[in-house]
Amino acid sequence: MPQIIFQPGNRIIEAEEGETLLKAARRGGVHINASCGGAGVCGKCKVTVLSGTVEGGKGKHLSEDEWDSGKRQACTALVRGEITVELPRSGDLKKGSLGTEVPVHQKAGQHSFCVDELKKEGVFLPPVEKLFLELPRATAKDNMADAARVVLGLHNQYNVWGVTISLPVLRKLRQALREDDFRVTVTVALPVNESGKKYLINIQPGNWLHRNFGMAFDIGTTTVYGQLVDLNSGEVLAEGGEYNGQLSYGEDVISRMMHAEKDNGLDLLQQEVASTINDIVAGLLKKADIAGDEITSITVAGNTAMTHLFLGLEPDNIRRAPYVPVTTFLPPIRAIDLGLSLPRHTVAMVYPSISSYVGGDIVAGVMGSGMYRTEKLTLYIDIGTNAEIVIGSKEWLVCAACSAGPAFEGGGITHGMRAAAGAIEDFDLDPLTLEPMLLTIANQPAIGICGSGLLIAIASLFEHGLIDHRGKFGRDLPTDRVRSGRSGYEYVLAWREDTGGDEDIVLNEVDIENFIRAKGAIFAGVKTLIEEVGLQVSDIEQVILAGGFGSYIDLDAAMTVGLLPEVDPDKIIYVGNGSLMGARMSEMSNHIRHDVVEVVHRMTSFELSEVASFKDQYVASLFLPHTDMSLFPNHHLRIRRNPDE
Amino acid sequence: MPQIIFQPGNRIIEAEEGETLLKAARRGGVHINASCGGAGVCGKCKVTVLSGTVEGGKGKHLSEDEWDSGKRQACTALVRGEITVELPRSGDLKKGSLGTEVPVHQKAGQHSFCVDELKKEGVFLPPVEKLFLELPRATAKDNMADAARVVLGLHNQYNVWGVTISLPVLRKLRQALREDDFRVTVTVALPVNESGKKYLINIQPGNWLHRNFGMAFDIGTTTVYGQLVDLNSGEVLAEGGEYNGQLSYGEDVISRMMHAEKDNGLDLLQQEVASTINDIVAGLLKKADIAGDEITSITVAGNTAMTHLFLGLEPDNIRRAPYVPVTTFLPPIRAIDLGLSLPRHTVAMVYPSISSYVGGDIVAGVMGSGMYRTEKLTLYIDIGTNAEIVIGSKEWLVCAACSAGPAFEGGGITHGMRAAAGAIEDFDLDPLTLEPMLLTIANQPAIGICGSGLLIAIASLFEHGLIDHRGKFGRDLPTDRVRSGRSGYEYVLAWREDTGGDEDIVLNEVDIENFIRAKGAIFAGVKTLIEEVGLQVSDIEQVILAGGFGSYIDLDAAMTVGLLPEVDPDKIIYVGNGSLMGARMSEMSNHIRHDVVEVVHRMTSFELSEVASFKDQYVASLFLPHTDMSLFPNHHLRIRRNPDE
Repeated sequence: MPQIIFQPGNRIIEAEEGETLLKAARRGGVHINASCGGAGVCGKCKVTVLSGTVEGGKGKHLSEDEWDSGKRQACTALVRGEITVELPRSGDLKKGSLGTEVPVHQKAGQHSFCVDELKKEGVFLPPVEKLFLELPRATAKDNMADAARVVLGLHNQYNVWGVTISLPVLRKLRQALREDDFRVTVTVALPVNESGKKYLINIQPGNWLHRNFGMAFDIGTTTVYGQLVDLNSGEVLAEGGEYNGQLSYGEDVISRMMHAEKDNGLDLLQQEVASTINDIVAGLLKKADIAGDEITSITVAGNTAMTHLFLGLEPDNIRRAPYVPVTTFLPPIRAIDLGLSLPRHTVAMVYPSISSYVGGDIVAGVMGSGMYRTEKLTLYIDIGTNAEIVIGSKEWLVCAACSAGPAFEGGGITHGMRAAAGAIEDFDLDPLTLEPMLLTIANQPAIGICGSGLLIAIASLFEHGLIDHRGKFGRDLPTDRVRSGRSGYEYVLAWREDTGGDEDIVLNEVDIENFIRAKGAIFAGVKTLIEEVGLQVSDIEQVILAGGFGSYIDLDAAMTVGLLPEVDPDKIIYVGNGSLMGARMSEMSNHIRHDVVEVVHRMTSFELSEVASFKDQYVASLFLPHTDMSLFPNHHLRIRRNPDE
Repeated sequence: MPQIIFQPGNRIIEAEEGETLLKAARRGGVHINASCGGAGVCGKCKVTVLSGTVEGGKGKHLSEDEWDSGKRQACTALVRGEITVELPRSGDLKKGSLGTEVPVHQKAGQHSFCVDELKKEGVFLPPVEKLFLELPRATAKDNMADAARVVLGLHNQYNVWGVTISLPVLRKLRQALREDDFRVTVTVALPVNESGKKYLINIQPGNWLHRNFGMAFDIGTTTVYGQLVDLNSGEVLAEGGEYNGQLSYGEDVISRMMHAEKDNGLDLLQQEVASTINDIVAGLLKKADIAGDEITSITVAGNTAMTHLFLGLEPDNIRRAPYVPVTTFLPPIRAIDLGLSLPRHTVAMVYPSISSYVGGDIVAGVMGSGMYRTEKLTLYIDIGTNAEIVIGSKEWLVCAACSAGPAFEGGGITHGMRAAAGAIEDFDLDPLTLEPMLLTIANQPAIGICGSGLLIAIASLFEHGLIDHRGKFGRDLPTDRVRSGRSGYEYVLAWREDTGGDEDIVLNEVDIENFIRAKGAIFAGVKTLIEEVGLQVSDIEQVILAGGFGSYIDLDAAMTVGLLPEVDPDKIIYVGNGSLMGARMSEMSNHIRHDVVEVVHRMTSFELSEVASFKDQYVASLFLPHTDMSLFPNHHLRIRRNPDE
C-alpha cells in the first residue's frame, strides 16, 4: 500500500492504490476543506503534490499555473504510488497543532466467520447432505423393494437409520437405481434434533457427491441479498442483491403490513418477495454456472414482518398491541410451496424469530457473529428505523427492539436521504475556519445527507463546540455557515452552487433534535436492558454492529453523541449483513441449526414499553452524549474545541 | 323366519321372508330340478304348495288346473309365512333316501370386527385426532406467538409435546384463534411410533370435536370401494363402490402395468383411479351429508400394483423377474398430492405391501380379520386370478402369491363369465336323474357360469361320480346331458331353450382341467408354504376367506375338489372385502397402524417359483381332490353316488 506524507506535520498515512487523496486524508484524520462532497465542483480541496504522482485532480477552479506548480484537487486526484502532499496553510496549522491528541476516526473491524473453523470443530455438516450408495443388484433371492434396498444401504454404508423417502423420490426411484447399476447419490435432509426424522429428498443415478449447493438469503425490507454456496467447500460461489419487490407497496415495514391486510394484499406481497428471490436465484445460478436442480436447500432470514410476508402469514398482530406474531419457529418447508423457482426437492429453512420486533435477521446475526458462544459480555446492535438490541454471551441473552424513528435512514431530517449517490456520508470540520470536509457516496455533488453522515456531522459540530449538550447552536460563531433558518439555527453543509440541487444543504436544530431522539431511544434501550439483568453499561466488553448503517458508523462519533456506550474501539466489530451471514452459516452446519433453536429458547425478549424505567432512561438520554456524564468518562478526549478558545 | 316343510321326508328348513322357494330349498339342501337358473323359463321346478301361501310362482309351463291344485314354479314363488311343500316324486324319492347322510352345503360364517372391541381394548384412537383448546388471550405480559400459544396449550391441556404446525395451518392460525376468543379445535396427525413427530394439520375456531370423519378405501383391480366413517363412534355413515376407471386400459393387473409403461400411461392410470375415488368420495359425502373439509384422513389399501398406480410409482419391475416393487412402505401423504378432491389438510395413509404379489389388500385383510393376533394356526386366502395365501398366527406369518389363472373369474372356461346377472352361481344334481338345479345371479336365464358356480358344479359332478379323480367324464352315463363335445366330453348345464343365449351351456373336460390347474396351484401353494415352516396342512386350525369369490364359496365343494384343506366348516370364516375392513380399522386406530408395521416386518414372503418342492406339490395337486388322499380323510363323507350303484 502506498504511503502519503502530509506536510506540514509530516503525518504519514497508508492509502489504497487508486483511491482519492481526499478519502485517504479523511481516513488518516487529516482535514481538507471540501464542500461539494468530492465531486470536483467547489474547488476548495486544493493541495500541492510535492513529490510522487497522482492521477487526475484537475478542475475548473484550478488555473494552469496552479496545475504546473503541482496543485491538485484532492477530491479527484487518485493515489498512484508514494507521494508527499502539502496542505493549504489555514486548515493545516491548527489541525497539526493538536498533534497526536486527535484520535483518528475509527470504523469497526470486520468480522466474518471462517468455514475452516466450522470444519475444525466438526460442525461443518450441511443440514441437507448427499450420500453415495453402491447397492447390490436385485436378484431372485434378494428382491426386496427398491426403497428397502436404499434404506438398508444407508444403514450398511453410513449407519443411517430411519429415513423417510418422500413421494417425489419414490416416483423416480426405480429408474434412478437402474440407470447406473444401483449406484446412486441420495440427498438426505437431516432433522434439527438427532431423534427427528430424516427425509430422503432426492436421488440421482451415479456419484454426485462433488455437486452439492445451497443458498442463503437475507430478506431486508429494502433489499434482498442472496448467496450461492458450495456445500462441500463452504465457498460462496456467487452473490447478489435486488430491491425487495414489495417496495412498490410501501417503503417501510408498517406500510407493508398495512397493505397485507387489504384484499389479496398478503398474496401479492408474498409473490413480490418470492419473485425478487427468484430473480436473484436465477442470477446466482447463471453467475456460478450451476443448474437449478443442484440446489438442495435454501436458508432464509429476515425480520419478523418480512418473514411473515414471505411465508404468507398474516402480520396483522405484529403491528398491534400486544404485538403477537403468528409464529416464531418454522418447520422446514418445500421451497416450491413458497413460490420459489427451485426444484421440487429443495428444502427451505427459515430462521426463527424472537418476537414481533426481534426477528430472524437478528437471530441469524447472533449466530453468524458468534455472539451466541462468546464468553465476553456483548452488545449486538442493528440500527435502522427499528434498532434491535441483544445483550449477553454464551450463558444468557436478552433482547429488545426500540423504535428509533427513521432519522438514521434520513427520515425526518430536512436534507436527509438514504445512502445513495450524492449523499454526504462523511464529514470533518476545520477547527479554525469551521469549514467542512464533505465526502459523498459515488463522489457526486451533494444532494443530501445519509445516516452515517448525519452522525458524524452532529458529532463534529458537538466536538468543535458549535452545538451544546442539547444540540443547540452557539449564537455568535465566527462563520457564516451557522445562521438562523426556518427551523432554528442551522449549519450550511454545502452552499447551493456546490451541490447537485438548487438550495443550500443544511443541518438545523430540529434535525439535530430528531437525531438525538433516535440515538437516545437506542441508548436508553441498551441501558434499560442491561440494568434489567443487574449489570451496568460499563460491563459491556464487546460491541457487534450489524446492518448497513453499522458498517459505516464512525465509532468516535457514535460515542461522542452517546449512541454507543464507550468501549475500546478494538472491541467493536461489525458483521455487515449479519442476517445473510447467519443464514449462510446455518446452510452449512446442521449443528448450528440445532444451536439456533437453543439460542432462541435462551433469549429473553423484553418489551421496552412494558419496562417501567425505560421512559426515564429515554429522557436522560436526550442529551449529547447523556445527562449522566459518568457513563462517558473519556468524553473529554474526543472534544476538539478550537485551541484558541 | 318362516319355516318350510318339504314333503315327503318332512324336511324342515328356515326360509327368509320373500326369498324364492328354489333358493330356500337349495340352502336347505333340498334338490329341485331347475335348468334355467331361476328365471321361470324352463318350468322344471314345479312343486305343490300343500298349506300356507306363496306369492307368485306362475309360468307358461303351468296349466290352470295345475295352478288351482296348488302347483307353483319354485323359482318364482316367494315365501310368505309358513308353508308345506310337496316335491315332485322322481327327484325326491332318491334324495330323501340319503337322509341326513347328505351334508347341507355350507358357506363360511361372516367375520366383522367390532368397534366396541377396539374401544374396550383402548386402541380406538384414530391416527388423526381432534383436540379442543381453550387458550388464554394474548396480553402485553403474555404476547407469545400464536403458534407457541397453541403448542403450550396442547401441553397444558393434553400433555402433548412436540407438535409441528404445517404451513397451511400457520396461514390461518391468526384468524382461527381470534374468531371464537382463543377457543379452537386442532387436528393432530399422530405418528406411527410414539417417538415420531406429531403434525398439527388443521385448526377450526370453536369446538368441533363432535365432527371428525375419515374414509377407508379398497382399490381393487376391478372395483373401488369406499366407506365414510365417523371417527368418534366408528360408525360407517355411508359406503359405495364404482368400477375402477382404469378398466378401460385393461381388465387385469398385467395389462394395466403394461399400459403404465407407455408414454404418459402411468399419469393417466393414476388420474383414472384418483378420479374413481373422487367420484365415490363425492357420493359418500352426499349420502352422509358431510362437508368435504370435515374429512381428516383417508386410508387406502390395494394390491401392490394398484397401490403403485394410485401413487404414480412405476410398476415396471413388479411384473418382471425378480419382481421388485418400488416400495412396500409409504409415508403419510397429503391427499391432494395424490389428486384427491379432499381438503389440503387431509392425510392419506396407504397400506404397506409385502412384495410384488402380496399387497396392502392382503395386509389389510390380515389386520381386519384379526389374524395377526390370533393364537390359532390360520390360513388366510384371497382367491382371484392371483391367490394370495398367508399362514400363521400372532407368533409368525408367512405368505406367498400363486398364479391360479383366471378360471375362478370365468376366464379360460368355455361358458365362463364374471359374477354378473345370468351367471350360474349355484348348482345341485339330482343323484338319480342327473338333472341339474341351477341358480343364477339376479334370477336371469343362464348365460354362463361364474367361479362359485363352476366350483360347485365340478364338485357335484365329482361327488355324484360323473367325473373321476382326473376330471374325466364317465363314458356311459344314463343321461343325455353328458355327451361328447368339441373339447372332450361335457355336461350340459342348460339346454339352449332354457338359457338367455343361443347355445347350450356346457362344462367340458378342458374347462375342468383348467379349473383343476387353478385349484391345484392354490392348494400346492398352501401345502408348500406350510411345509416350509415345518408343519402339515392338517395342523391348520382356521381358514379365513377373503375377496368376492371367498364370500360365495361352498365349503364342502371346495374341500371335495381339494381347493381348501379339510377343516371343520365352523372354523372357516369369510371377511368379505378384507382390504376395506383393514383400511377402516387403521382409519380408526393408530395403535393398529402401528401394529401393521410390525406385522409387515414379521411376515416372511416366499416366492413359490423359488421353492424347489412347489412344482412337485403342484403336480400332486392336479387331481380331485389330491393324489394323496390321506390329506382328505373325510372325503368319502362327501361322495354321494347314486345309492343304486
